[in-house]
Amino acid sequence: MLQRPPAEPGMSEADIDTPALIIDLDAMEGNLDRMAAFCRNAGVRLRAHAKTHKSPVIAHWQIARGAIGQCVQKPAEAEVLAWGGVSDILVSNEVVSSRKLARLAALTRMSKISLCADSAIVVDQIEAVAESFATRLTVLVEIDVSGGRCGVEPGEPATALAVRIARSRHLVFGGLQSYQGRAQHLRTEEERRDAIGQAAARTADTVAAIRKQKLECAVVGGAGTGTFAHEAASGVYNELQAGSYVFMDADYARNRPAPDFEQSLFVLSTVMSAARPGIAVLDCGHKGIAVDSGLPLIHARQDIDYVGASDEHGSLVLRSDPGSLAIGETLRLIPGHCDPTVDRYDWYVGMRGKRVECVFPVAARGMMQ
Amino acid sequence: MLQRPPAEPGMSEADIDTPALIIDLDAMEGNLDRMAAFCRNAGVRLRAHAKTHKSPVIAHWQIARGAIGQCVQKPAEAEVLAWGGVSDILVSNEVVSSRKLARLAALTRMSKISLCADSAIVVDQIEAVAESFATRLTVLVEIDVSGGRCGVEPGEPATALAVRIARSRHLVFGGLQSYQGRAQHLRTEEERRDAIGQAAARTADTVAAIRKQKLECAVVGGAGTGTFAHEAASGVYNELQAGSYVFMDADYARNRPAPDFEQSLFVLSTVMSAARPGIAVLDCGHKGIAVDSGLPLIHARQDIDYVGASDEHGSLVLRSDPGSLAIGETLRLIPGHCDPTVDRYDWYVGMRGKRVECVFPVAARGMMQ
Repeated sequence: MLQRPPAEPGMSEADIDTPALIIDLDAMEGNLDRMAAFCRNAGVRLRAHAKTHKSPVIAHWQIARGAIGQCVQKPAEAEVLAWGGVSDILVSNEVVSSRKLARLAALTRMSKISLCADSAIVVDQIEAVAESFATRLTVLVEIDVSGGRCGVEPGEPATALAVRIARSRHLVFGGLQSYQGRAQHLRTEEERRDAIGQAAARTADTVAAIRKQKLECAVVGGAGTGTFAHEAASGVYNELQAGSYVFMDADYARNRPAPDFEQSLFVLSTVMSAARPGIAVLDCGHKGIAVDSGLPLIHARQDIDYVGASDEHGSLVLRSDPGSLAIGETLRLIPGHCDPTVDRYDWYVGMRGKRVECVFPVAARGMMQ
Repeated sequence: MLQRPPAEPGMSEADIDTPALIIDLDAMEGNLDRMAAFCRNAGVRLRAHAKTHKSPVIAHWQIARGAIGQCVQKPAEAEVLAWGGVSDILVSNEVVSSRKLARLAALTRMSKISLCADSAIVVDQIEAVAESFATRLTVLVEIDVSGGRCGVEPGEPATALAVRIARSRHLVFGGLQSYQGRAQHLRTEEERRDAIGQAAARTADTVAAIRKQKLECAVVGGAGTGTFAHEAASGVYNELQAGSYVFMDADYARNRPAPDFEQSLFVLSTVMSAARPGIAVLDCGHKGIAVDSGLPLIHARQDIDYVGASDEHGSLVLRSDPGSLAIGETLRLIPGHCDPTVDRYDWYVGMRGKRVECVFPVAARGMMQ
């Protein structure tokens, strides 16, 4: 079953059923505009990552501002976007089962579908599935520029894989996927710039090696909200895959990426117990807000700390006036990490100021397959 | 949208689409039987907690073995159980909005509904809603025996609240909710026994104080999988609310509660990349398995460590044979924490050995309101 929608258009914020995932639409639209302007000025394409928002609605808002398409991590997310009218989708990840590959092959009837590979075994598997569907899939070689997750080594191993893709009759060699994940959360701008500088150099060498094989990398993609300005400036990357900039979160805010984005995503939560002075309990714990990158902050109330999350309870400590939180009062929580917080909800509540302007589904919530 | 079911009855484990939430039915049934036998022998009632399993199917398996009903934390969970035929449901938590209370009042047409209160304000709110629905709600006083979450102080404040409930025309005073949450995860049996001993003493004093007001506590409820034997032995508690015993998890296993329960819940995950020897990457990160109580363990493969979770990737290190994990191979992960792991999935896949015996919904997935 789906959660019931926690609000209806026209309601005031105080009437929203909590916990609820709310968007400050003004702040979000500002973020969308700023990133679109940045990419236009930098002369790079934006293929925003839908693993953050999981919504064809927000995808179309990005595309209307110039994004060329969307990234996803999973075939099930690709399905939700394709069924929602997104026409160009990259699975920026390896897909290894023939059942999942068949679903991607089927989607090529609706949208352009690309995916990544980092092994010859999987390239051959993709070719077999594409052949059986009499279709063509675009495959990018993922190279490892981050140290030890997915991706083949840049240089010769990546080039060999590119050649193998290009020689597969039902595959199109799409280019390179080169995402420096660890750099996103480095705390200083200098650390992030250095990490991306190294990744860009290894990526450029690989592009050159592939060119020697008379193959072009139509896409050289990567980047996230923490680093995209460095990839854009590198002259190597031509597609940026940032996702979190739409919403931001407490962890990205600590890194202060530029241009500045505003916090636009919140979890609205209600004080359910205030049995003694100075402490209070919210109706949102870690089932309702992700804590993997730290506890949430309280929006616009610097006198309150969210000090502990259990499954369905959030414990608050009031540093100033100990009696200033009443049972039934609502607070906006800033998630420590936006992506997995969004993935706990079936509905977005879009706020224009304190008024509910729209309610729409987190359509790819839970689509991990 | 819901996730599509990752398997169908009759399939083998190797054919399940991953990540998937799987139950070892033999192990789970053994756990259900052991807890039922324990409660029968101890002369206490079992009101198992559905915040773990979120499923009317599993609730009925518990009730068929003698459980008198179910606990939930949220009105939306109560709805899913009532609509699934569970006839006696306690919301073991405060409910503070009149919108949520109206939903509980409406459910009294289908099931017996109880809930908790820890303030006079909320008692009066519940009375007003019950009156407007011309129904009666059973209200327990939650006392704080754990130090600083929900609950009024035991003794006089709890007694005053009990009297207020009993004098409300549309409420029934149901007894005491006395859950020592912090004791569940203390590491030694002695620490847990001492903590429950203290909680039981304060609870007993409160029962006696309420009796002086000529009120009886029909229910004295609490306990979890880490401590229930101590509540049962106390002579104070008459209802146990354990939930996690059904599935167990890595954190509860570290505490070794007695009687011993088996791990019955797993996340099945596939190796999606193995680009260099000694490391590999799974298709399940913290969007697919909760990490708030520690990283998952690998079932039946002590030579492999799950060393890092990002959103959709799990990083493995192989301590023995560095080439022994192939792309496409599946592993069973033991969650660090069962409750929030279950809450990420729409479907259970019930396994009898290596064969899929049944597929059924996590019907109250995401029901946090």
